Amino acid sequence: MTSQASAESRPRVVIIGGGFGGLHAAQGLAKTAAKVTLYDRRNYHLFQPLLYQVATAELEPNNIAFPIRKILNKQDNCDVALGEVTSIDLKQRQISVNGGRVSYDYLVVATGARQSYFGHDEYRACAPGLKSVDDALEIRRRVLLAFEEAEWEEDETSRQAKLTFVIVGGGPTGMELAGAIMELASKTLPDDFHNIDTRCARVILIQGADRLVPGMPEDLAHRAQRVLEKAGVEIRLNTLVTEVTGEGVAIGEEHIAAENIFWAAGVQGQAVSGTLGVDLDRSSRVLVGPDMALPEHPEVFVIGDAAAATDAGTGNPVPGVAQGAIQAGDYVARIIATELKGKKPDSRPTFRYHDKGSMAMVGRGNAIAAIGKTHLGGFIGWLAWNFVHAMFLIGFGNKLIVIFEWFWNYVRHTRQSRLITGDPEVHIKDLRCK
Amino acid sequence: MTSQASAESRPRVVIIGGGFGGLHAAQGLAKTAAKVTLYDRRNYHLFQPLLYQVATAELEPNNIAFPIRKILNKQDNCDVALGEVTSIDLKQRQISVNGGRVSYDYLVVATGARQSYFGHDEYRACAPGLKSVDDALEIRRRVLLAFEEAEWEEDETSRQAKLTFVIVGGGPTGMELAGAIMELASKTLPDDFHNIDTRCARVILIQGADRLVPGMPEDLAHRAQRVLEKAGVEIRLNTLVTEVTGEGVAIGEEHIAAENIFWAAGVQGQAVSGTLGVDLDRSSRVLVGPDMALPEHPEVFVIGDAAAATDAGTGNPVPGVAQGAIQAGDYVARIIATELKGKKPDSRPTFRYHDKGSMAMVGRGNAIAAIGKTHLGGFIGWLAWNFVHAMFLIGFGNKLIVIFEWFWNYVRHTRQSRLITGDPEVHIKDLRCK
Repeated sequence: MTSQASAESRPRVVIIGGGFGGLHAAQGLAKTAAKVTLYDRRNYHLFQPLLYQVATAELEPNNIAFPIRKILNKQDNCDVALGEVTSIDLKQRQISVNGGRVSYDYLVVATGARQSYFGHDEYRACAPGLKSVDDALEIRRRVLLAFEEAEWEEDETSRQAKLTFVIVGGGPTGMELAGAIMELASKTLPDDFHNIDTRCARVILIQGADRLVPGMPEDLAHRAQRVLEKAGVEIRLNTLVTEVTGEGVAIGEEHIAAENIFWAAGVQGQAVSGTLGVDLDRSSRVLVGPDMALPEHPEVFVIGDAAAATDAGTGNPVPGVAQGAIQAGDYVARIIATELKGKKPDSRPTFRYHDKGSMAMVGRGNAIAAIGKTHLGGFIGWLAWNFVHAMFLIGFGNKLIVIFEWFWNYVRHTRQSRLITGDPEVHIKDLRCK
Repeated sequence: MTSQASAESRPRVVIIGGGFGGLHAAQGLAKTAAKVTLYDRRNYHLFQPLLYQVATAELEPNNIAFPIRKILNKQDNCDVALGEVTSIDLKQRQISVNGGRVSYDYLVVATGARQSYFGHDEYRACAPGLKSVDDALEIRRRVLLAFEEAEWEEDETSRQAKLTFVIVGGGPTGMELAGAIMELASKTLPDDFHNIDTRCARVILIQGADRLVPGMPEDLAHRAQRVLEKAGVEIRLNTLVTEVTGEGVAIGEEHIAAENIFWAAGVQGQAVSGTLGVDLDRSSRVLVGPDMALPEHPEVFVIGDAAAATDAGTGNPVPGVAQGAIQAGDYVARIIATELKGKKPDSRPTFRYHDKGSMAMVGRGNAIAAIGKTHLGGFIGWLAWNFVHAMFLIGFGNKLIVIFEWFWNYVRHTRQSRLITGDPEVHIKDLRCK
């Protein structure tokens, strides 16, 4: 441990956000002279790709989240603080957090993304997104309550509306959510309800583009579509939702009566990016240079979902996935480490993204995966999906428990996490806009 | 499955509450001609003895809770409904639930208990109790946030108040909570905080009686006290709290500055018991006859924590523990089953409680247990505690995961469930009365 006096004279690196980008940036600075502080408004790192399994009662939040302190506790030069950064002052090189101001020499903005409703923020109450643990628990609560209410609903039309689930957005999250809700309705729940047949539930997946998961190879998208349709999911391609209410969604003239609408259609940067006073793209992401820094402020980096960055290798945008954030976190840590040693090169090396592949779960024992030129599907894809996702989870205990849960749920068609939490007096109707 | 017409002519048994009492009553009626409906305002059965482990980040809610539907799904004559029963009309033989009225031929009230503040309901906001999953998550949130705040608190006095935990009530729950918070502070968290020494946290257990756990044998209570004191818990016996605020507790003239106060001092019946219009005891429990029924209404039984019942064998009160509810649930089911067969005896057999023992966790690898005349403590007691509690958990998957968690936490000194959930913008200070 260094003394307090020398700590204060050390160059100060502030990192905002404890997702993959922020964590990798912090860890990459472990052996430097920097004094690092990582701020997050949550005390945990969250593995977002598995959030849909929390939403569909397969996993608990603690299975996919891990305390940031615990991850970084061996790193003496890094403090972790719970706090919401409300603004960034580029001129003064300070951030505002928890009512105070903190100075930095280098700043890494890794604040991630939130759900975007494309200007229709009024949809949020009727159609929760899936970006946080609380979002996932809210979706879970709504899904489970829908069946509870349908069980005792005597009106046929109302009952069908309660048993209709609309998912807006056909990317990996929307697709995975649709498949998992269908499985819940058709495999897990039928025996538990005596007055309704939960297999009558409708799951409708609405996608604006002409195919699912546009970020993945076309043959896999078609394969996933066939599997989902066979399972009973109704897929609407080339379709845009024109209105969302507590009663359902409108698609032009058509109205689909549905009490359960979930939004997986788009993301945008966090509000703090707007306080930088620099150019943002349409999705409120910060436009960064080929070194992930602000063109006018090389001491400020923006990485991961918060940034609109370009892969210097291919000229393509860096995708908003865990690998994009991890690689950018490692990259900016290397740049800062080099410069802290006093080696300020004329120009920094540019960021090159290495595509390690992509995968998405389609249904029970079925996933698609593109790893280089290898395209996998079905059970082999599912095994690959489970293996890769478990390996990325932090904590050996977490890995074991999640693998056990997956195995158990697969074999037994069950879900371990079917609790409706929150105040029981808040009836589901009160939470929906009418 | 019987047809709708015959179903309606069947005698109708309504059970309120899906705890141990309600579940056992429902299961005991499986082979009868009755049409059973079990109402609960939660969709899950909760194993309350392990709630303190949810509160102290050791287990997740789903480890100790299980969907009531799933437990009863093979029982064709039993429906499960989510709903809050707001009143009971003994004359009309109807309950009011979810805005409607439902008739019964037999009623089993198994609504359990809630925290009692002995007339000081204003303490509730400052000193949450531990009776529900939401209570447990609130305590967990406060405990974890206390360390987060202390890490950045510069004022020495304020920091110590943030790191002081007062538990009011020295029964099993209070004792277990105190031991677990002490362990968290002294074993799990020290490495994770760089600016504070979490081992400086004070845990103060306040007990009105002259010893801990008055329901257990005296030698075990003394043994537990020694273990807790050795671990650093400050125990105040013969002590009554005279005031509770957001800044601490008063004990007569003395004031203990503490931002974290938890209440484990007493329980009372649920509000619905008051609508019966019959005699209640001081704790709002319904006074029942030796057959667990209302003296004037033999078709209405009250069991478990909702009842003030007497063991016909010993003349002692039936204790408010899981075994009391389980045995009463089995007992009333037998009475109803007999009477449904048309055999109405002149007098019912009286309820006799079989004491199967009691146990409480004291600390890491240490528990006390009284089983008949055998008194266990230390590691053997801990093994017995783990074995018995795991066996009572519902669901084989739950058992395996909980045993794994306990083993893992024991070996690694870790806690898997250290997430602070809820809205991050709600700072802890706003939630405490000042």
